[in-house]
Amino acid sequence: MLTLDNVYRAHHRLKKVIRKTDLIYAHTLSSDNDIYLKTENLQVTGSFKVRGASYKISCLTDEEKQKGVIACSAGNHAQGVALACKVNGVKSKIFIPSIAPISKVEATKAYGAEVVLVDGIYDDAYQAALVEVEKTGAVFVHPFNDEDVIAGQGTIGLELLEDLPNMDAVVVPIGGGGLIAGVAFTLKQLNPDIRVYGVQACGASAMLESVYKCRLTSLPSVSTFADGIAVREPGDITYDYCAKYVDKIVSVTDDETATAILTLMENEKVVAEGAGAVSVAAMLFGKIPEKNSKVVCLVSGGNIDVTILSRVIHRGLLTSGRISDLTIELLDKPGQLKEISTIIADLGANVIKVNHERGGQNTDINGCYINLSMETRNHAHFDEIKEALLARNYHLLENYMC
Amino acid sequence: MLTLDNVYRAHHRLKKVIRKTDLIYAHTLSSDNDIYLKTENLQVTGSFKVRGASYKISCLTDEEKQKGVIACSAGNHAQGVALACKVNGVKSKIFIPSIAPISKVEATKAYGAEVVLVDGIYDDAYQAALVEVEKTGAVFVHPFNDEDVIAGQGTIGLELLEDLPNMDAVVVPIGGGGLIAGVAFTLKQLNPDIRVYGVQACGASAMLESVYKCRLTSLPSVSTFADGIAVREPGDITYDYCAKYVDKIVSVTDDETATAILTLMENEKVVAEGAGAVSVAAMLFGKIPEKNSKVVCLVSGGNIDVTILSRVIHRGLLTSGRISDLTIELLDKPGQLKEISTIIADLGANVIKVNHERGGQNTDINGCYINLSMETRNHAHFDEIKEALLARNYHLLENYMC
Repeated sequence: MLTLDNVYRAHHRLKKVIRKTDLIYAHTLSSDNDIYLKTENLQVTGSFKVRGASYKISCLTDEEKQKGVIACSAGNHAQGVALACKVNGVKSKIFIPSIAPISKVEATKAYGAEVVLVDGIYDDAYQAALVEVEKTGAVFVHPFNDEDVIAGQGTIGLELLEDLPNMDAVVVPIGGGGLIAGVAFTLKQLNPDIRVYGVQACGASAMLESVYKCRLTSLPSVSTFADGIAVREPGDITYDYCAKYVDKIVSVTDDETATAILTLMENEKVVAEGAGAVSVAAMLFGKIPEKNSKVVCLVSGGNIDVTILSRVIHRGLLTSGRISDLTIELLDKPGQLKEISTIIADLGANVIKVNHERGGQNTDINGCYINLSMETRNHAHFDEIKEALLARNYHLLENYMC
Repeated sequence: MLTLDNVYRAHHRLKKVIRKTDLIYAHTLSSDNDIYLKTENLQVTGSFKVRGASYKISCLTDEEKQKGVIACSAGNHAQGVALACKVNGVKSKIFIPSIAPISKVEATKAYGAEVVLVDGIYDDAYQAALVEVEKTGAVFVHPFNDEDVIAGQGTIGLELLEDLPNMDAVVVPIGGGGLIAGVAFTLKQLNPDIRVYGVQACGASAMLESVYKCRLTSLPSVSTFADGIAVREPGDITYDYCAKYVDKIVSVTDDETATAILTLMENEKVVAEGAGAVSVAAMLFGKIPEKNSKVVCLVSGGNIDVTILSRVIHRGLLTSGRISDLTIELLDKPGQLKEISTIIADLGANVIKVNHERGGQNTDINGCYINLSMETRNHAHFDEIKEALLARNYHLLENYMC
């Protein structure tokens, strides 16, 4: 049940499982507002999910504990349930869709869970989990639509009040809505003046639509790289709490989220996953109507695949002009590559890729082109290089994106 | 002066400038030993340097403060001095070599320092700074060879004793030696049973050589991407403390450091710079003679350029088989690209780059080759793909590194 008593109860019970994560003042992100980061990406298992799962499991009767726990997840919830069960001495069986990254499967096993890989997507794994629940009578731990789980997430609210009692607002990612339901409920009970904002990915904004339409709404499909909040159907319980306690829900694009991930790495030295960075994205891109306030951005998790992180960084470097791509059309005669490399080197850029090829049917029969990738300082530096090449009569083509 | 009294004095004075950074238990890094990370990469300014600089500045007389402070650095020390001066209301003038990344120059300015860019490398900037000291009589704040600076760094030792009084060992990066001098002095005064290990980059191990040869030794040159510890000449003061209090100094290669950076990002969700990650590299690669111990790895900073981080990640992905490059020689006839792509897609790899070209002088006149970059799950997955291609009689060439 979601009561303030139970949130406090969770707060005390969780101490043996979770870390009280740091609240960090984000100097370089603060200008109109003072921004603080609640770093749940540094939580054990890499996300806040372990809080709700732990409290839920601690509430089970001895008989229920004996039967073990079943859950279904491709990500953070799986690891949270696995660790919470291990610490509480309860068996766990987690159903994971086969498309999930191997790293997450391995992490879940490492926390001691029995993993069942189910061919297909989340919905297939969910159906398989329900069959198992029916068969064994074990307790199913829902990732968000459960009042005990929500009470566990609410403990973040208590930690915030402890560390920054005079905060003005909190910005919280929303997928299914369990995290924001717990945090908003807790904060509003104890200090109704604190504003609570929710953030969704544009491509997965079911809760935003639900609250806007004043009824629980599912999406036909979702599309975002922030897999931790790519939820088609919010819960009815979490919907009710959002409608009652959340001041405003906004959405951010995947590009805004990617920029936030890069900013968090560069300026705050922490790794956030897409779902964890949407709160910071919403602040960075002016979606949160606060000014001269103390605002906490909840960074909910850090479990991002390194290949995706690598793409996010590359995109960020292109966007900020620190990698620049250039294509030059030229006549195929000796010495041109040398001249071009000299111009670029003299201006202090660092070539990281060269592709030099004979032209296609639209170019002069003696034509060829050269495609370059360079490390540059910024857009102005790249412009300087382009001007130097133009001054020597080189013909620059529209840039490729690589 | 370096006394325990002064370390305690620093501890109290620093409270208005620094954060007490978190000590985080590193679950996935712990096996033979329990590993804890002291996250000075999450310190304000992104490194521990602000501690020593702040305490030094707080020790100046009013007259000295009036004259302002001069420092020379291309990195973390610049930002530390700038912020420490700002908080203490002291003017600072920082000499930075012109080769320093723009981002570091901008960060130093943002903390309110006057920045003087000096053409050339560190030594040129250092000479310019000394001329200015001569001219103005302002105080020069050395980055490491100063007992007040060392006392400031020693405050990390006090925080460790507060958070993990029963630690067995601490592993500390060494550049000039200021950090380890302060930490080792403090810990050994209060609990001489705690082992203190130092770590240097192989390409910049002047302190290791000095201690080995029992006399202060400089290197003709240094080579490491861990720029924060790329020091040619240790200090005489720091050398004395290292010789007296440090149990053992080891060194790590740049590849080991890069692996540690990637591990810290993937498992611990924090960004470390090369200098900050050498302590973790030393643990990961078995250089520290501890077993069943509680070991603190000091992660000293997180100020790493994103372009370098991007290369570190790419290298790590190649090393761990999550990006695989493949070159196939084939006869130039229709349908082959299709067949190859089908084989790869069916095995679940994701092609991220294709280069298809006619052959050179060593190949059949009808020959061509295709160079592919793929996202794979691991080395075994890549082997599976290669076997499937060999089974269809494709001729695989030695892989390129890209």
